[in-house]
Amino acid sequence: MKMRGNANARNTIRGNGSRHGAAGTQLPSGKTAKASMAQNIYDRPEFFAGYSRLARSVAGLSGAPEWPALKAMLPDIRGRRVVDLGCGFGWFCRWAAEAGASEVLGLDLSQNMLARARAETPHGVVSYQVADLETLELGEGSADLIYSSLAFHYVADAARLYAGIHKALAPGGHLVFSTEHPIFMASTSAGWREIEPGVRTWPVDHYFVEGARSTDWLSAGVVKYHRTLGTTLNALIRAGFTITHVEEFCPTPAQFTANPALAEEVERPMFLLVSAMR
Amino acid sequence: MKMRGNANARNTIRGNGSRHGAAGTQLPSGKTAKASMAQNIYDRPEFFAGYSRLARSVAGLSGAPEWPALKAMLPDIRGRRVVDLGCGFGWFCRWAAEAGASEVLGLDLSQNMLARARAETPHGVVSYQVADLETLELGEGSADLIYSSLAFHYVADAARLYAGIHKALAPGGHLVFSTEHPIFMASTSAGWREIEPGVRTWPVDHYFVEGARSTDWLSAGVVKYHRTLGTTLNALIRAGFTITHVEEFCPTPAQFTANPALAEEVERPMFLLVSAMR
Repeated sequence: MKMRGNANARNTIRGNGSRHGAAGTQLPSGKTAKASMAQNIYDRPEFFAGYSRLARSVAGLSGAPEWPALKAMLPDIRGRRVVDLGCGFGWFCRWAAEAGASEVLGLDLSQNMLARARAETPHGVVSYQVADLETLELGEGSADLIYSSLAFHYVADAARLYAGIHKALAPGGHLVFSTEHPIFMASTSAGWREIEPGVRTWPVDHYFVEGARSTDWLSAGVVKYHRTLGTTLNALIRAGFTITHVEEFCPTPAQFTANPALAEEVERPMFLLVSAMR
Repeated sequence: MKMRGNANARNTIRGNGSRHGAAGTQLPSGKTAKASMAQNIYDRPEFFAGYSRLARSVAGLSGAPEWPALKAMLPDIRGRRVVDLGCGFGWFCRWAAEAGASEVLGLDLSQNMLARARAETPHGVVSYQVADLETLELGEGSADLIYSSLAFHYVADAARLYAGIHKALAPGGHLVFSTEHPIFMASTSAGWREIEPGVRTWPVDHYFVEGARSTDWLSAGVVKYHRTLGTTLNALIRAGFTITHVEEFCPTPAQFTANPALAEEVERPMFLLVSAMR
């Protein structure tokens, strides 16, 4: 029962054409100085071009298989103030405006993303600003929902971020976010292994070696930060949050039927979805 | 970069001499009828004999590497009523009595375990009873701390159990438990894989196929129940609990130094430790 490496490293769920994990994930060989500013991969031409072609970039929320699960975790936002951390092309900001939010603020590190978001958002309640999640400062009690899709794994100091989000939420306010799952990210040889024909497994190692992981996804040397699930949840609890739901995303039976290529997602979680309340 | 199967399936942390995972973990091929009574592996002669030789059975709490982490999650129990679900030889019950608990009730399915627990417990505040966690009924508000070490993964209906525990706790009461981690349990080919000499990885597959896993650990065909981490946490939340700490157990630097064989534990979590409050 030998395991064959990376028989198919394509990731159906992340987006068509993505090569995430194809070259494996690596621990940086040298020490990484603590980031005072996030790596801005999205403004690299090759990354921006590749990202723009992902299903979730072309089709928006409906191109992201985990969106229905994330949406089900959202509170009623009618008349509420919403902030989207890592808003990209603004798909969620426009959705929030249409769902009745009173104000929507989309923040992103990427000028390229924001330029397109602004051009495609006619909604008067939505505004966009450049912001770095490593140094983010939001006004106290300035939001009722803080949302983030697949941005937190690029942040080195998550505890700082959670504390800032807690302070920025009004009492009773919600944080709902998705991030790469630590099972997906931990290994230094991330990628499918075929243990016998048609039987795939995902390697987990270095789970407790938290910190930077360098991976080639759309662009070389993209740095993400691996944290155990316990670290993430305990940091939220310490920041003052009550955890209300923890979803390790798996497509629904209907999604498996509609897109058989998703079948591998039953083997291991790629995304972690969390909701928490102040 | 081939992966070699089960180069060393010995599990240092679980106990000396254990062979857990050596034959892999399997999904039962037929449908398993929902257990109305738990499988009593502990009263099988070979299991009881093997279990009795584990470090944690011989040395007690100090023989369990995760005990200091679990202990750190306990509330002050002086003058409090404590219930231990799956008390085994009574090591925790005696510790709780010595830590000042006013009453300690140890419950276990195994007559063999309880006979030895009674014989070794001179503490007047401790009593033992046979109980099956699948059908457990505890008095409402009858406990201040409900504790369980490595028993919940043998329970098919965890949601029922958590609801019963919530009802049995006085307001402000605590549940603190350890269970096998779903990363450890998910795969149908659980066990170390060596991807290159000295580099080990742990396979994860069938993560979202929840339910029975048959494994050979001390005895053949021991049935455990795999649940995702999300399922466990959400079931606790739905039962009314507030999650207060989630620890994926990794030995401390001092433990690694004292016992170099624990080194592999940095690769993936074997145990999940959770504390929750009513």
